Amino acid sequence: MTASDRRARLAVTDATPAERGDAARNRELLLDAARRLIAERGPDAVSTDDIAVAAGVGKGTLFRRFGSRAGLMMVLLDEDEKVEQEAFMFGPPPLGPGAPPLERLLAYGRDRLRFVHCHHALLSDAARDPQTRFAGPAMLHRAHVRMLLETANTTGDLDAQADALVALLDADYVAHQLNDRGRTLDELGAAWEATARKLCGC
Amino acid sequence: MTASDRRARLAVTDATPAERGDAARNRELLLDAARRLIAERGPDAVSTDDIAVAAGVGKGTLFRRFGSRAGLMMVLLDEDEKVEQEAFMFGPPPLGPGAPPLERLLAYGRDRLRFVHCHHALLSDAARDPQTRFAGPAMLHRAHVRMLLETANTTGDLDAQADALVALLDADYVAHQLNDRGRTLDELGAAWEATARKLCGC
Repeated sequence: MTASDRRARLAVTDATPAERGDAARNRELLLDAARRLIAERGPDAVSTDDIAVAAGVGKGTLFRRFGSRAGLMMVLLDEDEKVEQEAFMFGPPPLGPGAPPLERLLAYGRDRLRFVHCHHALLSDAARDPQTRFAGPAMLHRAHVRMLLETANTTGDLDAQADALVALLDADYVAHQLNDRGRTLDELGAAWEATARKLCGC
Repeated sequence: MTASDRRARLAVTDATPAERGDAARNRELLLDAARRLIAERGPDAVSTDDIAVAAGVGKGTLFRRFGSRAGLMMVLLDEDEKVEQEAFMFGPPPLGPGAPPLERLLAYGRDRLRFVHCHHALLSDAARDPQTRFAGPAMLHRAHVRMLLETANTTGDLDAQADALVALLDADYVAHQLNDRGRTLDELGAAWEATARKLCGC
């Protein structure tokens, strides 16, 4: 991907000409407040009232900018997905290029586990619809894992192995492991790492 | 599991005392007809009219015995799941006991792929609800794969490896591979086998 492709992709979420000054500032204040509150309490415990108060703007502004709570959450997920994608595609090692492929793969697994834990509610909705479960960002993640398996000279069916690894990072699966089976994110990271190492033959 | 445990488990779907004679016969005629038509055309192309005609009973009888088309389909899935469970837990090798664990594991993967393909619609509904996705029959399948990995002396985190292998047998995943990615059941069987062999270290 060239730098101009990258700018074009990111421009999708950039402010439109109408969103200048206060409007753009309020948008960022609301997104930052929502991100902070969700990190503190989990998404289910964060209301539009909470977000507006924390951002120091009126609740009407929230609805004018995002339409609904779900609309704000979708923008948040979309922006965070793009930041994560930038990090593993172009950012510093070990997540980004520069580290050996196995190291990148292990860093990716641990990073994605944290991401799906923080964004569980929204990712879970997307994953329950088979039309989006295997499309959109899911395809990019799968392609990234497959590429790293391939450059790590992994033998065998790379599609199946990438799919098997990506399945262990599914939002509902991770939530089930954490909430119903008493596992921790660290344990899941170690288990993912062990499985990835084994598939890479080391 | 003892023979009496097994009988107790199977008795859940056995006819109740009220279901004697014609009633029990009609029930079996309807289930057999539904099973046959679904195998021929896929579940989406089979109506309650089709099933009643093929079974040679009135449509009213179908609704009296099963409540609805969905009710009949659930009984069908439940009965077929039990037959498959019997086969891999107590049936002849290579699926059942007697064969080496790796052979049993490979036979299980291919058998389950065919099963989820035939029962896609119903399994897909169950898998989209996180309450049932990791519960009920799904737990038994996972435990079976984990047990075979363990008896094959597989190293590393067995939970994660069992979950990764079971994810490749998910009904929506299999349908996506067959319908959207042009793969065949044979190819998916070979890919599953290659991944399972690798995790077992052979």
